[in-house]
Amino acid sequence: MITSMENRQVKDLLLLQRKPKERRIRNVYLIEGLRMFEEAPGAQMETVYVSESFLAEETSAKLPQGFDYVVLSDAVFKHISDTQSPQGILCVMRRPHYEAADLQRGDAAHLLLLENIQDPGNLGTMFRTAEGAGVTGIIMNRGCVDIFAPKTVRSTMGSIFRVPFLISENLAETIGGLKENGVAVYAAHLDGEQFYDAFDYRGKTAFLIGNEGNGLSKETAALADAFLRIPMAGKLESLNAAMAAGILMYEANRQRRRGR
Amino acid sequence: MITSMENRQVKDLLLLQRKPKERRIRNVYLIEGLRMFEEAPGAQMETVYVSESFLAEETSAKLPQGFDYVVLSDAVFKHISDTQSPQGILCVMRRPHYEAADLQRGDAAHLLLLENIQDPGNLGTMFRTAEGAGVTGIIMNRGCVDIFAPKTVRSTMGSIFRVPFLISENLAETIGGLKENGVAVYAAHLDGEQFYDAFDYRGKTAFLIGNEGNGLSKETAALADAFLRIPMAGKLESLNAAMAAGILMYEANRQRRRGR
Repeated sequence: MITSMENRQVKDLLLLQRKPKERRIRNVYLIEGLRMFEEAPGAQMETVYVSESFLAEETSAKLPQGFDYVVLSDAVFKHISDTQSPQGILCVMRRPHYEAADLQRGDAAHLLLLENIQDPGNLGTMFRTAEGAGVTGIIMNRGCVDIFAPKTVRSTMGSIFRVPFLISENLAETIGGLKENGVAVYAAHLDGEQFYDAFDYRGKTAFLIGNEGNGLSKETAALADAFLRIPMAGKLESLNAAMAAGILMYEANRQRRRGR
Repeated sequence: MITSMENRQVKDLLLLQRKPKERRIRNVYLIEGLRMFEEAPGAQMETVYVSESFLAEETSAKLPQGFDYVVLSDAVFKHISDTQSPQGILCVMRRPHYEAADLQRGDAAHLLLLENIQDPGNLGTMFRTAEGAGVTGIIMNRGCVDIFAPKTVRSTMGSIFRVPFLISENLAETIGGLKENGVAVYAAHLDGEQFYDAFDYRGKTAFLIGNEGNGLSKETAALADAFLRIPMAGKLESLNAAMAAGILMYEANRQRRRGR
């Protein structure tokens, strides 16, 4: 059992919690809590850490099988945990690697394209809702908040394990590739003249969603095949970005189930 | 200008920030920031507080007209502010008072009924989305998080000023009254056998949404005319409560604009 905060592994874990660059260089991320652990793909698990109390309280059936795990004293676990009330289980995960084709599922392609989303909760909620709506993949530009940050990972509620995603170094190029492949790209935009439910999303479809405060950049919006708008009654300036994305993804889901 | 933290008004403001009961007894709530201030109905404003710097920097055009305002030193303002970076304007608002009829707008009734919503961000997002979707009123039970808490107020993005709402002491009775008035009550429920888009929401409609973790109580769910379910692909257990509410409210909006 590790009892020292000065232990090398403990120091490494703290770095991984706090430093996006460290996570990137080592090609890993962290998950915390029993629920996340149970949903995580075993093939991507690197090292499992449990607290002393967790080990004492949990039935051995819940403990990782076929993996090494490292026991930390409760104080050390609390020290490295990202949460207020640590559940006592934490895992270093290898990052998944998807190719663009993995995100499209042929003719069923239903994509979410995200530019400069800043709020971890919004990004996590978009992953969660995307899974529910049957989205085939999510593409984020580099300006989006780190999908591998502890708070974002947590708010995906496990969808990060199941929704294929890519971080694009060049969103314009990525969108160009999608369009060549027959994907219709719709930009959610306050200048849209048609409501979102005026379009047919039963073919290959991608929704472009921009930053919470500023929307899509001009350059990115210009790449869309069409602008769409979600109608807003009252005096509202905009919907929450995750909410807007959810309404669009579920409209595509509805059309694909029930027709237009 | 008030410069002492010991000033009676300052102490009162701190109580109003922190104590739900104090806000309730005095029948007020607080709003912060220029944006909220500009959107707030003047008739409900009680006292406006500005910081010394706010007064120096802002054009007088932006300052309250026809109201008394009280100047606080920057240190005092920071002391009473609920935000990390106070904008320097804060207002004590009288609570609005709506009757049940105000929430229904006759045959256009489109209501959100909330039971035990716990997250201020979720409640705020529901208000914001409800305004956009043209919801005519929101009814909350006493178990919901305080709509007048600073964080909830902030996350409504001003919709708290524009969407009529009630806090019901007896949700069963309130729902009974709605049903007598011809409102069809739909419960979002994982046991729903029909998808949400199988129903016609063009008549008087209310959506019942339950607690984030536990959903609706059995007793409340039993009052609904029908259960509905939002389809979920993947292995998701549920959608975020605000997201689920948003998808339902915008389906009603869509049907009312475009037919089924």
